[in-house]
Amino acid sequence: MTRIPRTDERRLWDSLMEMARIGATPGGGVGRLALTDLDREARDLFVRWAEDAGCTVRIDRIGNIFARRSGGDESLPPVMTGSHLDTQPLGGRFDGIFGVLAGLEVVRTLNDAGIATRHPIEVVVWTDEEGARFRAGTAGSSAFTGLRSVDDMLALRDPDGKTLGAELARIGYAGNAPVGGMAVAAFFEAHIEQGPILEAEGTTIGAVQGAQGQRCFLVTVEGEEGHAGTMPMDRRRDALLGAARMVDALNAIAFRHRPMPVITVGSLRVRPDSPNTIPGAVTFTIDSRHPDDATLDRVGAEMRSTCEDIARDLDLALVMTETSHRASVSFDPDCVEAVRRAAARLGHTCRDIYSGAGHDACNMAHITPTGMIFVPCEKGISHNEKENARPEDLAAGADVLLHVLVERAGAGAASPGASTV
Amino acid sequence: MTRIPRTDERRLWDSLMEMARIGATPGGGVGRLALTDLDREARDLFVRWAEDAGCTVRIDRIGNIFARRSGGDESLPPVMTGSHLDTQPLGGRFDGIFGVLAGLEVVRTLNDAGIATRHPIEVVVWTDEEGARFRAGTAGSSAFTGLRSVDDMLALRDPDGKTLGAELARIGYAGNAPVGGMAVAAFFEAHIEQGPILEAEGTTIGAVQGAQGQRCFLVTVEGEEGHAGTMPMDRRRDALLGAARMVDALNAIAFRHRPMPVITVGSLRVRPDSPNTIPGAVTFTIDSRHPDDATLDRVGAEMRSTCEDIARDLDLALVMTETSHRASVSFDPDCVEAVRRAAARLGHTCRDIYSGAGHDACNMAHITPTGMIFVPCEKGISHNEKENARPEDLAAGADVLLHVLVERAGAGAASPGASTV
Repeated sequence: MTRIPRTDERRLWDSLMEMARIGATPGGGVGRLALTDLDREARDLFVRWAEDAGCTVRIDRIGNIFARRSGGDESLPPVMTGSHLDTQPLGGRFDGIFGVLAGLEVVRTLNDAGIATRHPIEVVVWTDEEGARFRAGTAGSSAFTGLRSVDDMLALRDPDGKTLGAELARIGYAGNAPVGGMAVAAFFEAHIEQGPILEAEGTTIGAVQGAQGQRCFLVTVEGEEGHAGTMPMDRRRDALLGAARMVDALNAIAFRHRPMPVITVGSLRVRPDSPNTIPGAVTFTIDSRHPDDATLDRVGAEMRSTCEDIARDLDLALVMTETSHRASVSFDPDCVEAVRRAAARLGHTCRDIYSGAGHDACNMAHITPTGMIFVPCEKGISHNEKENARPEDLAAGADVLLHVLVERAGAGAASPGASTV
Repeated sequence: MTRIPRTDERRLWDSLMEMARIGATPGGGVGRLALTDLDREARDLFVRWAEDAGCTVRIDRIGNIFARRSGGDESLPPVMTGSHLDTQPLGGRFDGIFGVLAGLEVVRTLNDAGIATRHPIEVVVWTDEEGARFRAGTAGSSAFTGLRSVDDMLALRDPDGKTLGAELARIGYAGNAPVGGMAVAAFFEAHIEQGPILEAEGTTIGAVQGAQGQRCFLVTVEGEEGHAGTMPMDRRRDALLGAARMVDALNAIAFRHRPMPVITVGSLRVRPDSPNTIPGAVTFTIDSRHPDDATLDRVGAEMRSTCEDIARDLDLALVMTETSHRASVSFDPDCVEAVRRAAARLGHTCRDIYSGAGHDACNMAHITPTGMIFVPCEKGISHNEKENARPEDLAAGADVLLHVLVERAGAGAASPGASTV
């Protein structure tokens, strides 16, 4: 096997920082919602970098971007890596972006060292992973892997009623390539942990075994509007009081089953949202996750009956709809072992870890051998402007990614298509 | 004393229904926020009707509209009546509007009967009573009575950052007349009760003795954003969990002191409001009311210490700011007695009642003898699309208003300025 060089820590960090300028927030984070003008800017920058690195760029109908570094045998399916460039409204500089730019750094490092691979390597930017705008999450990889239909994803609407498809066309990323339906040799995604474990233990690399199952719900509580000054307390049907008790009770359910599951009410809206009107309706989301699917289902039933009890007590109407259900995922044992092996070869501490978050890799695991590489992030904070990671940890993750990609893609064969090699 | 005719029940009802078309909601109510294009339309319609009824229209710098029916002695201060035309986002057809159009109906009735009064009578439309948009409430009458400065009111901002002053100019209702500083002989406001008492008892007229004191607060709870999938429950600082417990606890405080006070959290907003991000901050309003000012202050202290305890428990930061404080109001005993007398003269059942809501009349009570006339509304529902009232009850209220206005304005003197008389 070819001696594999190290990635360039400084180059990777500088690329991350340059990308972070697009949608930079006053609090030091990034606000770059999917398919906004800022997302377009980030995509344009990635495409330019990828082409500068000799890649051929392909865009599919759902806007996924594939930057392909030719292989020695172009008839072989590509080994893929990548993540996403969209962020939460007040997100960080690394969630998703690191996975994309670590892939690019691998390509740049291979180019510099003149290393060719037998399989092509593709660095992919998945469309709308966060779901912060169109409320679905992993839209691009769900469509690519056939877990959800392309048309369903294109029809998703943001709170202003704009569809994902129309916004994709508006920013110029509604491509011509078909979505999915192609062989992929393997998929690896590098990512910050987004949790506190690696940092707390002083471990550099997480070999991700799988991801928690996740069930999301939309809950609507309906009472009756009324005048804040004249409606006696005991005649009220206050939707916000009901929703507040539910939020508290859902939290208590999570604690009852500790240390798992995690249950989060992240979005809550009041109607009509006027200081002197008793709220007539409240809509809120529930995000629940657990590594064991059966337990997650039991928790779901408990959440539902608890909300129903509260609604009944307060004479409120309740509608609780499941908006997404993702079973837990186990990654390919060979891919997980490849990560462990690469970390050991590079001299990095490594531990097995379970992902609390959903990732595009969880979708890819349904169609190809898949693995993930976690690196520590500061205090486990993510989906937050303060999200932070150390350059040396990010480079360590990129080094592990380089090793597993070269191992899967097969080094040594001349690559006539890669002009810089 | 001149024999006073009845108002025209059908004409009053038709005017109310015509006005209700402006901003009509699918649910049968009205959504006509202050100083929107819809508010302009409503104001234009009122001005046209007032001019058709022979009134001279004057608009002051804060946008209050005064429709003046000349008196026999124009040097005397006017007797005023009126209310407001703006509504809640999903409000009703009567709250405020009835008080304005009952005043107009009085003028029309006096015109038809050829009755002149010694004092001029002015029907006023107060600017932005509801406070649903600019978050203050009774902006126009607060400025008129000097309780708050004109400049402070003009500088109020809506959630989009637009000022009340700029919006007033935009819709063409930033008038030239000075705000207040004039003598007013008396003020009467007719209004639906917005509570359930009159209807439940089968009483037609409420002689309003005064209004509850009201204290409003803006509360900001700050925790820390984090990823919904990866942050363990026991490391979270979830601002929405804190806010939810506060909403529940505030409700419990109101019940502990029942049947008073009323405490309402009407507006609550989450940041960043994303389904898979732990809420970093929540802002909500508290509206608390009680007829006794000392008790209201004790309740305020209890609310504050309760919220502080919850914030401390959950390691959250709390800022609780008082945004408005209105002392309880007692109306002028002679005005209250005039209402009782008129109801008796007209053969209507009548009871003394306390207003749970704030009204422009509460501000006017600080500068002139003031009274209010309540009529029943269906199930006490107000600030709601379903707000409803019976034509005969509304006409009864207008009849009482006609009597008390003529009594105060002094009938019998010729009115050279009122051409239709």
